Amino acid sequence: MTELLSNYVAGRWQAGTGAGSALFDPVLGTELVRVDATGLDLAAAFAFARDSGGGALRAMSYKQRADMLAAVGQVLQSQREAYYEIATANSGTVKNDSAVDIDGGLFTLGHYARLGQGLGEQRHLIDGDSARLGKDPLFQSQHVQVPTRGVALFINAFNFPSWGLWEKAAPALLSGVPVIVKPATATAWLTQRMVQDVVNAGVLPAGSLSVICGSSNGLLDQLQPFDVLSFTGSAETAELIRSHPAVARRSVRVNIEADSLNSALLMPGASAEAVDLLVKEVAREMTVKSGQKCTAIRRVLVPEAQAAQIAQAISARLAKTSVGNPRNESVRMGALVSRAQLQSVQEGLALLKTQAQVLHDGASHALVDADPSVACCVGPTLLGLKDAAASDAAGVVHEHEVFGPVATLVPYRDGAHALALARRGQGSLVASLYGSEPGELARAALELADSHGRVHVISPDVGALHTGHGNVMPQSLHGGPGRAGGGEELGGLRALGFYHRRAAIQASTAVLEPLKPAAT
Amino acid sequence: MTELLSNYVAGRWQAGTGAGSALFDPVLGTELVRVDATGLDLAAAFAFARDSGGGALRAMSYKQRADMLAAVGQVLQSQREAYYEIATANSGTVKNDSAVDIDGGLFTLGHYARLGQGLGEQRHLIDGDSARLGKDPLFQSQHVQVPTRGVALFINAFNFPSWGLWEKAAPALLSGVPVIVKPATATAWLTQRMVQDVVNAGVLPAGSLSVICGSSNGLLDQLQPFDVLSFTGSAETAELIRSHPAVARRSVRVNIEADSLNSALLMPGASAEAVDLLVKEVAREMTVKSGQKCTAIRRVLVPEAQAAQIAQAISARLAKTSVGNPRNESVRMGALVSRAQLQSVQEGLALLKTQAQVLHDGASHALVDADPSVACCVGPTLLGLKDAAASDAAGVVHEHEVFGPVATLVPYRDGAHALALARRGQGSLVASLYGSEPGELARAALELADSHGRVHVISPDVGALHTGHGNVMPQSLHGGPGRAGGGEELGGLRALGFYHRRAAIQASTAVLEPLKPAAT
Repeated sequence: MTELLSNYVAGRWQAGTGAGSALFDPVLGTELVRVDATGLDLAAAFAFARDSGGGALRAMSYKQRADMLAAVGQVLQSQREAYYEIATANSGTVKNDSAVDIDGGLFTLGHYARLGQGLGEQRHLIDGDSARLGKDPLFQSQHVQVPTRGVALFINAFNFPSWGLWEKAAPALLSGVPVIVKPATATAWLTQRMVQDVVNAGVLPAGSLSVICGSSNGLLDQLQPFDVLSFTGSAETAELIRSHPAVARRSVRVNIEADSLNSALLMPGASAEAVDLLVKEVAREMTVKSGQKCTAIRRVLVPEAQAAQIAQAISARLAKTSVGNPRNESVRMGALVSRAQLQSVQEGLALLKTQAQVLHDGASHALVDADPSVACCVGPTLLGLKDAAASDAAGVVHEHEVFGPVATLVPYRDGAHALALARRGQGSLVASLYGSEPGELARAALELADSHGRVHVISPDVGALHTGHGNVMPQSLHGGPGRAGGGEELGGLRALGFYHRRAAIQASTAVLEPLKPAAT
Repeated sequence: MTELLSNYVAGRWQAGTGAGSALFDPVLGTELVRVDATGLDLAAAFAFARDSGGGALRAMSYKQRADMLAAVGQVLQSQREAYYEIATANSGTVKNDSAVDIDGGLFTLGHYARLGQGLGEQRHLIDGDSARLGKDPLFQSQHVQVPTRGVALFINAFNFPSWGLWEKAAPALLSGVPVIVKPATATAWLTQRMVQDVVNAGVLPAGSLSVICGSSNGLLDQLQPFDVLSFTGSAETAELIRSHPAVARRSVRVNIEADSLNSALLMPGASAEAVDLLVKEVAREMTVKSGQKCTAIRRVLVPEAQAAQIAQAISARLAKTSVGNPRNESVRMGALVSRAQLQSVQEGLALLKTQAQVLHDGASHALVDADPSVACCVGPTLLGLKDAAASDAAGVVHEHEVFGPVATLVPYRDGAHALALARRGQGSLVASLYGSEPGELARAALELADSHGRVHVISPDVGALHTGHGNVMPQSLHGGPGRAGGGEELGGLRALGFYHRRAAIQASTAVLEPLKPAAT
């Protein structure tokens, strides 16, 4: 039997008492480790985090917590090679794709360590200016933000076992809120190992960081009104979470990041240079992490007249992508994360094919160093709609996300049609725009701002230095309305809002004065 | 049969096709008018608001919409006397209490008209500074806020038919989002009349403001991902709303303001002056609008040794409160809003009495000019717990809100115990603090900031000019975590956030430049 990974709760390592669920190598099919959460005393786990972890964190200043994040970063940095090995084995990713998760997580952690330094030695945040409440200026209102006295429960997705933990934990811990993370079972190993390394290094107060691997059964039942819940995953699970009494009755604050039909949009009349930038970015986004990014491009909106030419250019790039065992140096794209995901992608592809044509067939890619009957590998597939009328009619293309290396070319009639098609996603994480005219790009970005959490604009002047359609930068909001779940993560210090409570303090200026931070 | 009030949807007045529900005078028991929403084409109503109303509002600048709010205020101002007559008849309130609702609504509307002037001729908001996304400063991230392309549905409470509409509608309309209001049936008349006056005056674009009176059946089914829903009412209804597919599945953004066990807290060692301020404020808050304010004081936390003296002082004030027909000049406190509320208050009182003693009995008040068998009038009742141990044991006092002129004196052992008791409310709209030492008051306010949306501090220096524990000022946040529903309203321009969508635009500075407002 493979190793049974322990959970870390209530300040100690505790093994589940069940048989456990196995984690597999998605390329070789071998069993790696097992996880199990059966028999844990969840009430004690949450109480310990809330009281011991929360109390200790709230006693620290923002700067002290920022230093703590920096120390966490150093611990993780020192074990980086081990994380890459786990990622190769458990996620089946090539080195560049493992980096998006591992180094992306470290980068985000470092970003919040730096931001936190700027908040200084205070223990609460001043929110805006004070406002007088009458003619006499003696009685005023001052808003403050203080850390919520609860735990932050993260129920995370399989595609980012590292980044998904740290992009949430960094703002939570910096805010003074203890974290309990429940990673997706398929790739829980990396999350568990990172928590283990940090716990063993003793750089966090007891109770600040817990990890529960295995089933999420019973976790939500533990939530109390001042806890918060951050979920990344499917819309179906999101609906169950929102309907749970913890959220529906006890007003537990919840942040949800769900499926999304992100698009790339070539502006009407774009230059050849802009077309090239689109082609390059679409091919890259389709294949990075085998398309298993919630921000990946799923729909490529192009002028009807250019669709054929662009289809050819993207297909030519995709054809050069070698797929297979990430341990082989020639391989550019590794595996999907599990057989279940492979099946889901194949079913999704079949569904999209009922309305779209195949322009580049992923099945044409022979696998390198991998057994097709075992490996969860699949070549990139570009689908296409035949004309602008089909783009309106093909509902499934705007509604069903295939979480793999699959995108659909969607021809549009004119600029207004293109924007309307982008909005057919009913709320997405990100749209990217490709063009050369700044005024037009700015107007289109604003038009998409209400239905997208982020608009990424690629013009030739930033062709070499933009950060990528799908890369989530800690400076920018991550989340989107509607189908994307309605959540907001990151965005610099904005992320701290989720872990704080805002209150108005109405008082004499003599009372408000001590609340303001000393001048620095 | 009494008049059947019309609904205003899809740009025209439409009567329901059912028999209607009657609205009553809660003092005289007479039927006043009827409301009904049977047979309305809700899909058409929401589509018209979303498309015609939303489109027209979004085409205006913030300043234009602020001017529009000012015009609405002028229309309402000109009909103020009619509103007072409706309030007396339908809410059974004395003039001062009607003012809290009517003039409170006008004041809040005027406040947003002024705030909106400062936002100028732009049509989107810049959110924070731009941040560079790499070493090269050419590629940056700029957050913006744009109005959501949907409707704002308000499901409102019976206690504020005027203020409850305008404190929500002012930020919504200023944001460029059309409003559909569903007032509570018992007091829908005033809301309906105000909408009628504004519609007839022609100061709003068609579709900007709709009113549906009667049942809320089917309203939530109309909500689409970019709509928002603001609900004020019971925790039970809030739970149903959160579990509705519109919210749980389609991620409709929802703001909820629910029950709350607000407290007034006399600081340990407070001066006699501070004690007097507490006594005065508690008696006032218990009786204003017959205690039918979600912000009213329900628990009075005092040092154990001072409880008896404070009980006497509050009771003496309450004894002087004349209760009855608001048309009689000698009456200080009018009626509850309905027989159903009268029964709910009596049941709640009976429940609290299982754990608390009666210190001043509302039943001792003879009604002035009102028939006790008909009028929904009830005298103010002060309950009390016998000692600090009882304050810990009496769970129902911290959990059950009696929505009427009822409060409970809760003795505490020491300062830490007092704060812990305040938090037993599991999230409240407001706590007030009474004391003289600014540093101690500031520390206590911060301690309560995570469990209260607002902390109102009354020290002798502001004794004559503070704005009142229960008065909601537009400058300050209104809402609270946990039991209070987890919502946030008002707070100056913060209120606009609910009606906007935030997005990060990542682009060349050449693209970001046109987004920034022209220097003024």
